[in-house]
Amino acid sequence: VPLLGKMTDIDFILRRGVSEIIPEKEFVDRLNEGPPLRLKMGFDPSKPDIHLGHVVGLRKLRQLQDIGHKVILIVGDWTAQIGDPSGRSATRPMISREEVVENAKTYTAQFFKVVDRARTDVVWQSEWFGKFGLEDVIKLASVFTTAQILAREDFSVRYAQGHPISMSELMYPLLQAYDSVAIQADVEFGGTDQKFNVLAGRQLQQSWGYSPQICFFVPVIPGTDGFVKMSKSLDNYIGIDESPVDMYGKIMSIPDHLVWMYLEVLTDVSESDLVKMKVAVEGNHLNPLEVKKTLAKQLVNTFHGFDASEQATENFENVYQRRNAPEEIPCIEIKSESGIINVVLTRFLLEYDLVDSRSEAKRLLTQGGIQVNGQKIESDECVLEAGSVLKIGRHKWARIVVVDP
Amino acid sequence: VPLLGKMTDIDFILRRGVSEIIPEKEFVDRLNEGPPLRLKMGFDPSKPDIHLGHVVGLRKLRQLQDIGHKVILIVGDWTAQIGDPSGRSATRPMISREEVVENAKTYTAQFFKVVDRARTDVVWQSEWFGKFGLEDVIKLASVFTTAQILAREDFSVRYAQGHPISMSELMYPLLQAYDSVAIQADVEFGGTDQKFNVLAGRQLQQSWGYSPQICFFVPVIPGTDGFVKMSKSLDNYIGIDESPVDMYGKIMSIPDHLVWMYLEVLTDVSESDLVKMKVAVEGNHLNPLEVKKTLAKQLVNTFHGFDASEQATENFENVYQRRNAPEEIPCIEIKSESGIINVVLTRFLLEYDLVDSRSEAKRLLTQGGIQVNGQKIESDECVLEAGSVLKIGRHKWARIVVVDP
Repeated sequence: VPLLGKMTDIDFILRRGVSEIIPEKEFVDRLNEGPPLRLKMGFDPSKPDIHLGHVVGLRKLRQLQDIGHKVILIVGDWTAQIGDPSGRSATRPMISREEVVENAKTYTAQFFKVVDRARTDVVWQSEWFGKFGLEDVIKLASVFTTAQILAREDFSVRYAQGHPISMSELMYPLLQAYDSVAIQADVEFGGTDQKFNVLAGRQLQQSWGYSPQICFFVPVIPGTDGFVKMSKSLDNYIGIDESPVDMYGKIMSIPDHLVWMYLEVLTDVSESDLVKMKVAVEGNHLNPLEVKKTLAKQLVNTFHGFDASEQATENFENVYQRRNAPEEIPCIEIKSESGIINVVLTRFLLEYDLVDSRSEAKRLLTQGGIQVNGQKIESDECVLEAGSVLKIGRHKWARIVVVDP
Repeated sequence: VPLLGKMTDIDFILRRGVSEIIPEKEFVDRLNEGPPLRLKMGFDPSKPDIHLGHVVGLRKLRQLQDIGHKVILIVGDWTAQIGDPSGRSATRPMISREEVVENAKTYTAQFFKVVDRARTDVVWQSEWFGKFGLEDVIKLASVFTTAQILAREDFSVRYAQGHPISMSELMYPLLQAYDSVAIQADVEFGGTDQKFNVLAGRQLQQSWGYSPQICFFVPVIPGTDGFVKMSKSLDNYIGIDESPVDMYGKIMSIPDHLVWMYLEVLTDVSESDLVKMKVAVEGNHLNPLEVKKTLAKQLVNTFHGFDASEQATENFENVYQRRNAPEEIPCIEIKSESGIINVVLTRFLLEYDLVDSRSEAKRLLTQGGIQVNGQKIESDECVLEAGSVLKIGRHKWARIVVVDP
């Protein structure tokens, strides 16, 4: 895993791709001294596939493993029988024991692409819930008030709307909290949307007389649509088990505004390199498409290795950027020191006789009839560089050649 | 138990002291044919004492036993650990195992004063809840929605007021409902205030694929104050284990409007006798105090036997009705065919020179300075009878003697 596990700088762990740590000071103290921390990570075996949204937290686990801490991965075979009701308006069908076992295999195979298997214990909830009696349930339930549990956002919304919430669903956060007691977790990780559950674990440990876990929250990232939380059910996800070509292609399809966030939370590209790239893009010295290609290549590299990332890049360039380009394309020579040039496209096309009039150029632009490197251009202001292939309308082509002025 | 278990008339069982039977037709059918019914009665061993409020339902059990049905008495040793939250605003402290055992002894000793021990099975919740696992709890909880449980009146009030309801308290109605599944109850009994819990048992049996129990509701009777539900915590109760003298005295202290209701739900006095007594009182041929004495004597007879009831009556008459009366009391002869006379007291007293003026009589009446048979008189309209002892102010006495006109 070439791009993970290299950064052992505590400050990097504490800042990069982190939303909130409760309480942060205690966490820093315990990182610096004391025995290795037990890092709790649970997974819902009804959802076996890991996507980039999960990877944000898994990277944190890996970074902490690399400085000596230990991951306890909990197979949620009991909570899966209830189903986490988050964001759903109806009760989920329970899954069978066989499915749980099968899905746990699928999950761990993906999990250990990011997390260090050697520093991970895998435990099953059945180790403690299999012998959990009514007395234990009553004791557990007595720690929480009904109002507190119903305050969880998904519950409160459904309750207010009069949608049914099964009594068994209310038990989900209680059982998940009890996991922290059972494994004596020192730190639990979750997206900011898991705040309720993670804090419940902390509260339960305290009422059980244990040292309360640190709650470590990572950002929830939007999916490929650019707005809604990445999730399989919304089909806006990028699974880490997807083929190099698919993964690369999906990254290339995300809106530009996501690229920097993904680089921030999903790669180890240094802060200073990120700043340099941003400056270059803002100064029109770097095409944003190239930044996106960097992200895509890095992620394919992470999950499939260097060779796969090279091949995926080449494939993308062949299939998309040069798609259908004729072998011989007329060249347009432009002068540029930096190798790139900013143009007002409709003027540029008229200047080089690629359209008959500025208004024709504008109409083509509006209709999506102009492509640069296989991507439709929507803005009249555009960056071209050496090798850029322009397609104007159905049949006109041009390739940019840069000459030193 | 002389006054119980005599009435085997189905109509008496269905009508007398009954609020609602769901579904009534099915109940009648199953009374008339089929195997003996299993009559569920649970008790909360944190409340070991039985008072007249409970007796209303226990009499129904006894009547049904007398026509061949069977009582299953459930010792609620598990639900007692949660505590029925009804009507409380805070969580009850759990009681110890030793207390449960001790209280079960106390309870059954009282229970079998009304219910036939020979046709009763006593079972403990621990028989099924002792081996109840998390899987069972989840299955049980999945039958009910949160809104349904929170609709229970005490919960909804507390929730609306922002008072804490422990999650464990929500389990109380679920566990009580499961009792019906565990013992395969055919009929469950409860006061009308238990409607929620009893119907929950019916629902659960259905979802478990069992034949749903019949729900048999009896009236909740006011306590000695005459208005609020009889309960130990409000100290307006008459316990069936109280001494004959105390029981008799407490009955004599209840407001007159309760007497008919108590006779209806707590005795076997026939409908026709009740009607006769009502007519006599309304026609001023019978002093309401005598009706109350009939009730008191009957109840002491029920719980302590005939001799005790005779002694309690005599004691009451000695201590209260003739209290402090001097041996020689001046007699007032009045003419009456029926043996009783209706008087306007203030006029009557003036007529027989027991007061100096009507206004003095009125003042005494207002201040509670006039007694008939040891009871303060508040209304100017009053019934006197042969032997009635009047006390006017501190020192004036008179006894009524009736002569045939």
